[in-house]
Amino acid sequence: MSTNRLEAFSDGVLAVAITLLVLNVKVPRPTVSHDLANQLANNWPEYAAYVTSFITIGIIWINHHAMIGRLRRADHAILFWNLLLLMSVGILPFATSLMATYLRQGHGQQHLAAAIYSGSFLVMSLAFSALNRQILLVKPDRLETELPEERRREIFKRAVTGIAPYVIAIAVAWLSAYASLAICAAVAAYYALPRASSSEG
Amino acid sequence: MSTNRLEAFSDGVLAVAITLLVLNVKVPRPTVSHDLANQLANNWPEYAAYVTSFITIGIIWINHHAMIGRLRRADHAILFWNLLLLMSVGILPFATSLMATYLRQGHGQQHLAAAIYSGSFLVMSLAFSALNRQILLVKPDRLETELPEERRREIFKRAVTGIAPYVIAIAVAWLSAYASLAICAAVAAYYALPRASSSEG
Amino acid sequence: MSTNRLEAFSDGVLAVAITLLVLNVKVPRPTVSHDLANQLANNWPEYAAYVTSFITIGIIWINHHAMIGRLRRADHAILFWNLLLLMSVGILPFATSLMATYLRQGHGQQHLAAAIYSGSFLVMSLAFSALNRQILLVKPDRLETELPEERRREIFKRAVTGIAPYVIAIAVAWLSAYASLAICAAVAAYYALPRASSSEG
Amino acid sequence: MSTNRLEAFSDGVLAVAITLLVLNVKVPRPTVSHDLANQLANNWPEYAAYVTSFITIGIIWINHHAMIGRLRRADHAILFWNLLLLMSVGILPFATSLMATYLRQGHGQQHLAAAIYSGSFLVMSLAFSALNRQILLVKPDRLETELPEERRREIFKRAVTGIAPYVIAIAVAWLSAYASLAICAAVAAYYALPRASSSEG
Repeated sequence: MSTNRLEAFSDGVLAVAITLLVLNVKVPRPTVSHDLANQLANNWPEYAAYVTSFITIGIIWINHHAMIGRLRRADHAILFWNLLLLMSVGILPFATSLMATYLRQGHGQQHLAAAIYSGSFLVMSLAFSALNRQILLVKPDRLETELPEERRREIFKRAVTGIAPYVIAIAVAWLSAYASLAICAAVAAYYALPRASSSEG
Repeated sequence: MSTNRLEAFSDGVLAVAITLLVLNVKVPRPTVSHDLANQLANNWPEYAAYVTSFITIGIIWINHHAMIGRLRRADHAILFWNLLLLMSVGILPFATSLMATYLRQGHGQQHLAAAIYSGSFLVMSLAFSALNRQILLVKPDRLETELPEERRREIFKRAVTGIAPYVIAIAVAWLSAYASLAICAAVAAYYALPRASSSEG
Repeated sequence: MSTNRLEAFSDGVLAVAITLLVLNVKVPRPTVSHDLANQLANNWPEYAAYVTSFITIGIIWINHHAMIGRLRRADHAILFWNLLLLMSVGILPFATSLMATYLRQGHGQQHLAAAIYSGSFLVMSLAFSALNRQILLVKPDRLETELPEERRREIFKRAVTGIAPYVIAIAVAWLSAYASLAICAAVAAYYALPRASSSEG
Repeated sequence: MSTNRLEAFSDGVLAVAITLLVLNVKVPRPTVSHDLANQLANNWPEYAAYVTSFITIGIIWINHHAMIGRLRRADHAILFWNLLLLMSVGILPFATSLMATYLRQGHGQQHLAAAIYSGSFLVMSLAFSALNRQILLVKPDRLETELPEERRREIFKRAVTGIAPYVIAIAVAWLSAYASLAICAAVAAYYALPRASSSEG
């Protein structure tokens, strides 16, 4: 299978998932007694989770593009791992909503919600690493341009490194759900912000 | 009509339908008395139905790509059958939600829900077979490369074989909704998992 | 503006709108006293409206493709009319839901709902005709291949003819909402079904 | 990164966001005592906000296309600002729903809602200007065709001018939410309507 339609379908799923996140940002019900400003302020976990998830999916899209761009042709195994990656991204609107809901009014259940939220990012990272491994190490003959094994291992290692902070975020979730969200947000900011030193981007 | 825009539109509908499935995975309402872990565990039919439907639509996308890739030009009949296929995929988020809702709290109605769920997959398979038939057998002169009739019949037969398990799943639904879901999940896993023997994928 | 991205964006909006229709097909709430089969049977207006709207958007997509395919370049006026067409398609999930809701439990209000439903199709047809007029008659120099005026008027006339049944459907809505829906469904079926005589499609 | 997939992903997000707006147009609940025509008439803020947001996103799409069309290659900074632009568009369905809800039944809170609504358009304009600045002024060597600095500053100035009315709309929101919405609608109409003088569009 050519990679064109693989990219088109993946772009579609990522674009829909990233845009569906807005459905979790709820409009406060109008009431006589409540103040809209207060209600919106109380909903800050929804906005924090929205921004974190939006940027994270955006980064996955950028990296996915770079990775598939290296590929000449896709085979069944690559389609399989790509589908798992898309499924892990597809579930993020649910995990984001879970996190935001329980961070706001959790009755002490926000630890589990935060662990599931960072856990979703972990699964996404694992699927992305598995897809990377399939492309770079298992069947490097499908690459567009030949890369020396050393360079391929280096790219793969960089993808795998992205897993670590999410493991930490899951562990931290049991101490503080807020700290767990902060770690996920920091990872998103780290990868998203343009770096001073990067000449290439 | 060239097949480019047919693919683009079909990819769009499949990508949206596969991503909308997440809207059926509900965040449990926070309560003082209930435990989130328990509530999530009770919702397992939602996750099982999500994964099954996601992978099934993913497989349809892969097969759709292979089929349209064989086509040089589309005519009205092909557009018609393709639209029916897309409509049957478009309804899957409803069927998935119906299945998950009634498997969890069905008051004995889950048999009908499971029959409708596997019935939706059956309709999707039938539409896919009809589209295949139109392309491979009715107007083979529209194919990109000429294929001997024997080979065309073989490809068509393989598409039709995919119908059988769904007929069984509908029948089994009246005995056990869980078994019916398990059959649909098994079909998805069978087609999705990379095969050891496949050199091509 | 080249027509490539115009097509891509239009395909995206049409694909999302056609797939969002499923959100109006509601899963009946599980209850001890009600029978699922009965509840689903009572919801038939949802399925009828779903199928009618799905096929109608599908036909608009096919015609849109044919029309834009004739175009070499788009200008501001074409983008404007195209945006109006997309807006009229974008509102269809609302009109479909309105129709289905009031046909089922309308307390005598289903006449207005049916008039709005066929009215949405009328607006869509008018926007499509205006776009056609702009492309075929106002600025024919932007066409991909030169067409004699007679032929251009003929194509335009065919597009305009599609308006008539929706005017009738609005009028009929005040007598019977069911008859109005039936007219809209008949129009969809007429344009969708492959014709015996069509060698081209 | 080539601009092809950047356009494809951006088109996807814009197409989904523009189509999701319809989810905020609510079907009035059928009741015995209420008249559907009255209920729909009372919901006019939903339709006004829908049309305003739809056209505004449509204009952003047209301008986004023109801007990216000037670009030869994208770097990390461009991807970053583009992601911020998409995030600001992605939140519009929420802001639109907030505006419509509080304009209708706001208990005096509609001023804040209108300020947030025009504020969202302001953020979108700022992100669009920042992206423009990055492309036209910071790294003009990535442009498809070389443009004299004067011309680049002119295009950038035009993009920045679009910011002003939204600043005014935010200020006006505290006097009248209706006037604020009217300003946003007027901006959309001004940019969308084909101009008599435009030979190019």
